[in-house]
This record gives sequence, structure tokens and C-alpha cells, in this order.
Amino acid sequence: MHGEIIAIGDEILSGKVLNTNANFSARSLFHAGYEIKRITSVGDDPDAIEDVLLSAVRRSRFIIITGGLGPTTDDITNEAVARALGLRLVENPKIKRRLKEASHTGYVLSKDQIKRLTHLPEGAEVLSHRKRSAGYMLKFQDTLLFLLPGVPQQLEEHVRDQVIPRLKAILPSRFLILQKTFKVFGLSEPEINRQISALDLDERRVLIGYYPNFPEVFVTVIIKGEDKERVKAYFQDVTLSVREVLGSTVVAEDDETLEGRVGQLLLKKKALVALAESCTGGLIASRITSVPGSSQWFERCAVTYSNQAKMDILGVRKETLLRHGAVSQETCLEMVGGLKATSQAHYFIAVTGIAGPTGGSPEKPVGTVFIGLGSRDFSWARRFSFRGTRTMIQSITAETALDLLRRELEK
Amino acid sequence: MHGEIIAIGDEILSGKVLNTNANFSARSLFHAGYEIKRITSVGDDPDAIEDVLLSAVRRSRFIIITGGLGPTTDDITNEAVARALGLRLVENPKIKRRLKEASHTGYVLSKDQIKRLTHLPEGAEVLSHRKRSAGYMLKFQDTLLFLLPGVPQQLEEHVRDQVIPRLKAILPSRFLILQKTFKVFGLSEPEINRQISALDLDERRVLIGYYPNFPEVFVTVIIKGEDKERVKAYFQDVTLSVREVLGSTVVAEDDETLEGRVGQLLLKKKALVALAESCTGGLIASRITSVPGSSQWFERCAVTYSNQAKMDILGVRKETLLRHGAVSQETCLEMVGGLKATSQAHYFIAVTGIAGPTGGSPEKPVGTVFIGLGSRDFSWARRFSFRGTRTMIQSITAETALDLLRRELEK
Repeated sequence: MHGEIIAIGDEILSGKVLNTNANFSARSLFHAGYEIKRITSVGDDPDAIEDVLLSAVRRSRFIIITGGLGPTTDDITNEAVARALGLRLVENPKIKRRLKEASHTGYVLSKDQIKRLTHLPEGAEVLSHRKRSAGYMLKFQDTLLFLLPGVPQQLEEHVRDQVIPRLKAILPSRFLILQKTFKVFGLSEPEINRQISALDLDERRVLIGYYPNFPEVFVTVIIKGEDKERVKAYFQDVTLSVREVLGSTVVAEDDETLEGRVGQLLLKKKALVALAESCTGGLIASRITSVPGSSQWFERCAVTYSNQAKMDILGVRKETLLRHGAVSQETCLEMVGGLKATSQAHYFIAVTGIAGPTGGSPEKPVGTVFIGLGSRDFSWARRFSFRGTRTMIQSITAETALDLLRRELEK
Repeated sequence: MHGEIIAIGDEILSGKVLNTNANFSARSLFHAGYEIKRITSVGDDPDAIEDVLLSAVRRSRFIIITGGLGPTTDDITNEAVARALGLRLVENPKIKRRLKEASHTGYVLSKDQIKRLTHLPEGAEVLSHRKRSAGYMLKFQDTLLFLLPGVPQQLEEHVRDQVIPRLKAILPSRFLILQKTFKVFGLSEPEINRQISALDLDERRVLIGYYPNFPEVFVTVIIKGEDKERVKAYFQDVTLSVREVLGSTVVAEDDETLEGRVGQLLLKKKALVALAESCTGGLIASRITSVPGSSQWFERCAVTYSNQAKMDILGVRKETLLRHGAVSQETCLEMVGGLKATSQAHYFIAVTGIAGPTGGSPEKPVGTVFIGLGSRDFSWARRFSFRGTRTMIQSITAETALDLLRRELEK
């Protein structure tokens, strides 16, 4: 049941547009039990379309072709497909009628533009007559072709409501595909790989993927098979072992995020968190408040970029700043203390550091960061040395701070 | 001078990962005068890699192959490429030495993992020995192959610093391609399109693209030609007219961002800005501080999510909160006033609103936002009604606030 995707359009080849259509189609099909073996992008060029289409028809049971179905001069998919497969272009009376109706509402097209929309390769079965956008299905030899509009929203509707139900009816998948993603922070990709390799999983039955998503690494487990009960049982087994091996480095699973997880943990404890950020400049607060409902666990954040702000809002002492500097364990601890004194929250995070690219010194190079954590019972601050660009240092600092809180809450 | 791109990895075919590497490579090459004629994604499957590689070698002068160069078990590109082209895998002593050095810093690999990194197809020329990630170049018959790591940041460095300079030296392009991007906020795509269409530009010579990048729309102008002087003159002409038509809705150009532009404007005035954020939760501060050097223009931000924080840090009166609510013009104005009273900055932004998905009411539905702006001379607060998801409302609120400050600073 292998298929492939062909995307047509110069805008993809010049890099102006990301091929999100192929991505959406592939993901939806994969979850429905269909594997995509190849994705090809070609330009608005009949020869290239012919070449790729003919070899795809030889290889695949179904092909999704996106783009080039509109009324403008660069929309050549119908013509190119008909030529490639040796089919005539035939006027579709239903589309013609629909366009006539639409013209009353101000959607006016030239004769050429109408021809481009109404003339489809012979045998084309229009997927939905409710839509102005005209995707269609075409059987050619043993292959099912789905020709879909390139506008992402229209494409997504077609894939979800037309392509997958029709595929399931015509070419039912024998496979169940189950997938789990672990989001790991604090272990490198090779380290994770080594630990999972030690599990000695059956490589013919389970597929493990490693995808860096800075500063996290996403580890996915995919199990596919015909015997649905066996697939489910083995999936349960394997994900448990992988989860165990990765242990506390798993900061979130599947669609969950670290900030979402921290929110849920705080909610369960009915606890609030307050922040003091310097070098991350509000990034931690922004991540926390990106989660719906965060007013239930987030109390405040003081982004104290200047020394004056550290003194004003957090009561950091001038003496501390002069003697130890803004980037020091002492200042960081006083930032935590300031939060405790002023906020009604239960947990406290303070961050101060040098994100760069300038501002470093031999004793405190760029990437030197102090992170402090506190509750009503304790507070501490630790020094970290991060590497990378400004964005990377800010991002890994925010991740580390959130992860330290997660670990505290999971104790 | 046509080339193509081959992306290797199951994660693309299952839709888990968007093929941003192909997009970045295609765009960069296009700007350097090279056209990409095909982009193909295949899985971690030696037969598929062989098939696509052999036909690409027949068609193209250069090929960029991304992914599968790492040390983990799913990294099979070196082996598959060697097999497809009938080349031996040869140990690269420099990479071996570099790995040995890295092992002292804790980057420990197994024997198999080392072999996967050190054994390259014979003739491989490593692109950069400064990096741990090993991209390489390979000449095969008349075709140049560039094998690049799949980690986006490493890929981008390789394309920019290695692939393009080498291509220019080995296969110089006849074309000059000039491109400008205007980042527009406050006009819809069809509106922009209508205004630019009215300019009646020569469609054979200039390519205008419209790419929504919420909440901005990116408008690109591309001019390509062999006569470099004519291209430059026409480009100058066209970009000036487009810029004039778009007027003050252009918030930034090319690689510049709105927050970067605001930073430069503040720096020129030697002025500092202070913020009070509620529904945006630190997003505005985070955008401002993502810009290197922002300590020169950013003083502080109070993320006052709770009413208590609004009273404590900004001196908002309890009475105001009780009578008008946290999301009101009155509270917003008092937030601006609180910043003025406590911070030494010169400009002030305050934001309070309902980002949703819950918390709305008939009088103040989700998306109701008040944005306040102040300087030492004035302050005001205005009501806005935004639509969309939580993320969209937070994002458009931050954009609007930064844009209001930009317009004030450009007066």
C-alpha cells in the first residue's frame, strides 16, 4: 500500500514556500496506516511533470499530486497530467455550472481561465462538488491518482474528508501503525542512541528515530504490523522499556511540552510560580504563559534587565551588585529572595547570565548563567556554562530553568 | 547550471518533520543565481536512495543531499551513496582524530558509531574541519555532490559558508538575481496585492511574491537577468515604487525584524523602554531581548499576571481593578503610570487583555486587549479586538504594541 506525493510549483523550488502540503498529507496518511515512499517537488514544467508522474505510476499504488489546479496561466497540472498519461481533456459540466453560479457573486473569469478549470483529464471524478476548489480522483492502470488544490486549507480538507476515506474504501490498509514521541533534555543524541541500542529491540519490528529539536531531542518509537493485537501489545512493551531507559530526562511526551507539563504539575499541587529573568528577557514567562490556563499557576515575572530594576523590584542590594556583579550566585540568590519577599507564589525561579554575543570576560565568558530555584522551604543558585549563539544560550537557559522546576515538582 | 536536492530520512516521509533543509538550500541557491529543478525526499532505504541518486546524477550538474550523516543506527547515507555510485568506503583520518579529541570532552561514541562517522565514500572532500558535523563534497562524473548534515543549523552553515562559495568557484552562474523582502503589518494579502498590481509592473521581468507570516505578510520582489547593470537599475526602480506604495505598513526589510528596528530607533534616540505585560506574558520583552545589544535600550518588564502583582509592582489601585477589571483602559493607563513612576526609562508600553481560550465575557470577549503607550510627555491606552487562537492573539498583541512604539519613534 505504498504511495507517493508530487508537489507542483516553481515557488517550492525557489524556496519561497515551504512544502507544508506534502508534510500534512504524509502525516495524515501515515496515521491512517499508509506509507509514503517518496515526495517529489517539480516546477511548472510539463516535461518534468511527465517524467516524475510516469515513474511514480510504475512504483506506487496511489499518488497525491498537489498544486497547479487554479485558473491562472501558471496552472498547468491538468494539461500536463493528461499529456503524460495520454488522456484527452474533457469539459466537466458540473464545474462549468458551478462557475456560472459563482460568476453572479462577482467571481469573474476570462474564457481561458474558465477552460483551465473546467477541462479535466477523461475519467476524472471530482472529489467534492460543494467546494469551489476542484480536486479530483483518476484511476490509471493500477494506480489511484488524487489531484488536489495547492491552497493549504483546501488541501487539508480534501485529504481529511476525501482522500483518506476513499483510500480506506478502495485500498484498505492491512497495517496498524502506532507511534510515540519522547522529548528528551539533558542527553545527547548519541548517548540516547547507545542506551536504546542496549535494549536490543527487534529492528525488523520497531523503528526508532532521533530528531534534534534544540535544546531537546525527540525520540520516536514506531511500530507497524498486520496483527493489530500483537502490534498493540508490543508497542506497550517497547514504549515502557524506552521510557524506563530514558528515565527523568523525558521532559514531555507526544504533543505535550515542557512548559505544559510544568503547568500541570503546579496545578496538581495548587501552587503558583513567580519568576525573575535577566538574560532570558521574558522567554521563560512567555513559554509558561503560552499554555492555556496558565493564570492558574503563574503569578508574575520581573524581567530585570538593568541593575536598577533588580534593586527596585527584587530588593537586590547595591553592595551585592558592586561586589559580585549582576551575573553571580549572590545576585541570583537575592533575586530568588526578592521574589519570596514580594510574591505570594510557592515556587520561584531566578535567572541571570551573559547571553552574548558581547559582555563576556575571562572569568565569566559568554554563556555563564546562574539559575536559582526556591520554594517556601529552600533556595539555591547554581552556575551553568552554556555554548552557542545568543538565541541558543537564551533557549537552553529557559529550558534548564523549567526542567529544574519540573524535577523539583516531580520529587 | 541546474541542480537538485535529495533529502534522506523516514521522518520526512512520515510527516514528522518539515523539510526546512530543502527550503533553506533552495532559497539560498536561488539567491546565488542557481536554479533547483527537483527536490526529492526518500526514506532511510538504500534502494530508494540508489534509484533517486542515479537518475539525479544523469540530470543535474550539482546535487545537494541532506541527512543521514550522523552516528546513529538510522544514519545510512554514506553507505547508500557509496553503494549507489560503486565507491568504496574509506576511513578519513582527520575525522578520526577529531573524534578522538572530542572524546576527551565527554563526547563518547561506540565503535559502530565511530565507524559510521569516519568512513566516507572514496574521493570525499570534507567541507570544514573546524566543525564536529561532517559535510563533504564528492565529484562523480560531471556532477558535484554535496552531502550535508540534517541538523538545520549545521546545514545552514554548510550551505552558506561552503556550498555556495564552492559552486561559485567551480560552476559560476550567468545570472544575477536580486531580491528584496518587505515585512508588512496591518494590510491583508489581497489589499497589498491590489495596491502593487496598480503599479503595472512588467510581469516578464519582475516576480512579486506574497507570503503570509502571521501576523506579518512578507512581500518579495525578485528580478533576474544576465545583464547585471540593467538588472540593478530596474531593481532599484521597482523596489522604490513598491516601498512607496506600502508606506508606513513596512515594519522591517529583508533580515531585519520589527523588534530589531525598534531597538535601532531607541538606540538612535539614546532612549530606554520599560514594559508591563499581562496577556502577552513576557512575549514582547522576549522579542526585544532576542536582539543583541538590547541592554542598551531595554530597561525592565513587569509581567504582572495576577492582580496582586499589578498592585505590588505597578501600583495599580485595588479600586480600579474592582471597578473596571484587570482588562480595562483604566487599569492599562495605571500600568503605564506605574512604569513611569518606578522606572528610569523614556518610553513605556503596557498590555492587558484576554488571550483565551477562556476568560471572555459578552462585554469583553476573548481577544479584547488594551495597549497603552507612554513617554515622559504623554500616555494613552486604546482598546483592540483581535481574533484567533491564544497563540495568535498573543502574537498579534505583541506585534501591535511594538508597531505602535515604532510609529511613535519614527514620528
